[in-house]
Amino acid sequence: MTAANRLMIDMTNFFSGAVGENGVAESEVEALGGRLAGLRERMTRWRAGEEPSFLHLPFEPEHLETVYEWGQEITAGFGQLLVLGMGGSSLGGEMLVQCLGGSEEFGDVLFIDNVDPVRIEETLEGLEWSDTMVLAISKSGNTAETLAQLLTLLPHMERAIGARSVKDHLLVITEDEQGALAELGRALHSPILTHPPVGGRYSVLSPVGLLPGYVAGVDVEGVVAGAANMAERCLSGEMRDNPAFWGGAAQYLLAEQGKDLTILMPYFERLNKVGSWFRQLWAESLGKLDAEGNHRGLTPSRAIGATDQHSQLQLYLEGPADKQFTLFIADEMVYYGDRIPARFKDIPAVAPLAGHSVGELLAAEFLATRETLTRNGRPNRTIRMPSLDAFALGELIMLLEVETVVVAELLGVDPFDQPAVEEGKVLTRRYLAQMEGQLGQ
Amino acid sequence: MTAANRLMIDMTNFFSGAVGENGVAESEVEALGGRLAGLRERMTRWRAGEEPSFLHLPFEPEHLETVYEWGQEITAGFGQLLVLGMGGSSLGGEMLVQCLGGSEEFGDVLFIDNVDPVRIEETLEGLEWSDTMVLAISKSGNTAETLAQLLTLLPHMERAIGARSVKDHLLVITEDEQGALAELGRALHSPILTHPPVGGRYSVLSPVGLLPGYVAGVDVEGVVAGAANMAERCLSGEMRDNPAFWGGAAQYLLAEQGKDLTILMPYFERLNKVGSWFRQLWAESLGKLDAEGNHRGLTPSRAIGATDQHSQLQLYLEGPADKQFTLFIADEMVYYGDRIPARFKDIPAVAPLAGHSVGELLAAEFLATRETLTRNGRPNRTIRMPSLDAFALGELIMLLEVETVVVAELLGVDPFDQPAVEEGKVLTRRYLAQMEGQLGQ
Repeated sequence: MTAANRLMIDMTNFFSGAVGENGVAESEVEALGGRLAGLRERMTRWRAGEEPSFLHLPFEPEHLETVYEWGQEITAGFGQLLVLGMGGSSLGGEMLVQCLGGSEEFGDVLFIDNVDPVRIEETLEGLEWSDTMVLAISKSGNTAETLAQLLTLLPHMERAIGARSVKDHLLVITEDEQGALAELGRALHSPILTHPPVGGRYSVLSPVGLLPGYVAGVDVEGVVAGAANMAERCLSGEMRDNPAFWGGAAQYLLAEQGKDLTILMPYFERLNKVGSWFRQLWAESLGKLDAEGNHRGLTPSRAIGATDQHSQLQLYLEGPADKQFTLFIADEMVYYGDRIPARFKDIPAVAPLAGHSVGELLAAEFLATRETLTRNGRPNRTIRMPSLDAFALGELIMLLEVETVVVAELLGVDPFDQPAVEEGKVLTRRYLAQMEGQLGQ
Repeated sequence: MTAANRLMIDMTNFFSGAVGENGVAESEVEALGGRLAGLRERMTRWRAGEEPSFLHLPFEPEHLETVYEWGQEITAGFGQLLVLGMGGSSLGGEMLVQCLGGSEEFGDVLFIDNVDPVRIEETLEGLEWSDTMVLAISKSGNTAETLAQLLTLLPHMERAIGARSVKDHLLVITEDEQGALAELGRALHSPILTHPPVGGRYSVLSPVGLLPGYVAGVDVEGVVAGAANMAERCLSGEMRDNPAFWGGAAQYLLAEQGKDLTILMPYFERLNKVGSWFRQLWAESLGKLDAEGNHRGLTPSRAIGATDQHSQLQLYLEGPADKQFTLFIADEMVYYGDRIPARFKDIPAVAPLAGHSVGELLAAEFLATRETLTRNGRPNRTIRMPSLDAFALGELIMLLEVETVVVAELLGVDPFDQPAVEEGKVLTRRYLAQMEGQLGQ
């Protein structure tokens, strides 16, 4: 499972040499290295397992063991997996399944990550309960939405397969067998797996993300190997040869100069869910008060190439210079897709297309958009992988996680808490208690 | 088809009285009325049909006639509709289909709005060509991606149904029968419908959006009636009683005070695609240079309730005060969803949920998030409809369109052009010409 680095990160267009005054100077990025010494030490402790950390997950073989054990049980006994969870409990799994899933042997891996009643009803309608395993995930065990999801589908399940069979169709993940979800698991006699002691948004490299991925046919061992490789790259290098330190510090500096919107724009639709996962990681980890009470944070936003050239590009080029861009590509896209027939090539707008594959057109659109962003002074970088495979995705996941803690360190915020959302949870319970079948005024 | 106004717009929390210094003063919004006099006059000419305009579309009965004629032909003869188009050529139809579609009699209405080779291949795999109508839309007729989509699927279609039958399975929409797409339509002997003389992002109330909607079972007459009703509301009222002038002016003023990120957050997943459609409308219409060469524009971003409370809310509350929020709800959500059983109510975290419907939980989350945004000084407004029906969606579409031109007027930019994206199209052709089966360096 050794492999050369698969991810290539090209930051040229972040710098002033390429994009002028909207860029940053390489020497200024380099100079931030001193402020990262403390983080570097903490990361060494994380790697050594002296403190629990996302960075250590790819070096803990028990996660893959759990995934193989339960994954084989699920794929052998069932044809559908329904994952219940909010935020970090579902976004990592969704990313793995959408990027790399597609098992010939297993049916659908479905996610319910909201309490939208219509969406839930539509999802349940498509289920064959006798063929379905439910995986309910909540780190605290007390996430209201996840409990509501499980409790409302339980009667459907019991009617379909009988109350005594529920224990064979339900698997629960919480930390330390805690909270209401674990209590429910015990009451229903279902197995309870352990959530690692890291926040939900950093949990994808544990069974939280890997188990749904495995069931969907993802090479989870490859994902973990790629993540481990990137973790080592981020532990051994100084600034320029440490991809996450170099990338994180540059993004921080761009944000300090007013480019505090981070646009993730993959040119490959399978990479779309990376944006949804990253968006939570970045927003919840960075958007908070620093020690002086200043409102800090970078705002993430998803786009998709080439579609959003017809939606957002005008704004990106001529709107406020408040954005920085990360473009993702997989070289393999060039080889995909039919060739456009030459038969109508006498029509002027068809002539440039004739003979090229759809993948070549998409690649040309990427190159053109990158160049027009650069010409218009919009700082952008490219993360490029030869093919979208498990190893490359694992590298990407770890890169983005370490970059997040690097930016947090420079902003002076704690990347692992989310103190502001507690108030809303209390208010939700209060409003719910008052609710009597209508919304009120 | 007369109906009372269905959309209620509550702007209380945009103002300083509710959110303190991050809000705007009602008197300042009122004072912007003078700068909108010119737009008001232009809108009167638009309403009278003296200049082509999106505002006049709901008063042009020929669009519904075309939709009924071709819609009935499609639903009678086919079971699937495949729409090809980029940006404004597909986003309006996608919005109608997702919000209100779901015909018992017709199968899927599918959209290809990218040139992602894997996505195209997966979509084509699911098609039964003999049962499929293809609708290819491009205002100019020369959109490279739409041409590439049509040209690559043509051989598949011809192999499946025979070259002579293609003309019965293909419908084309362009303006003035122009461009390569119309030439292709003529060469293939397929019917060619007319794109109205408005930009793609303002075209949803013509066959561009209404025809896919009708085929999917949407009450398109209701949508048009709602839009007409809102157009009249926006033509007759002064500032406070003109929803789009009042709303647009307040959003402009918030942006001038640094809140230039517009977050659209529906609490009802069916409304999700409204965000995708709005995002193009807002970005392409507003993101551009004003007469003095300043970079202007507000950046749109989509969120979804309650899911993004577990992803973005921390940033919204404690991150930079650079955002304004529009929350959408449909009261009817309260009535949907199973009641959460009381059976496990002895578990502390379950107790508050027991006996409530999933829809009530979602509604309580909306109320709680609105309150916590307000308490934290984050300007927000609520657009509320009793139920998500055609009339209400029509009102919403027209409201957002008129608000867009109001904000453009105040920013001093032209809401109907997109001058910056031309360079990328030229560069795409250049890169494509150089492409020989690999991406290059």
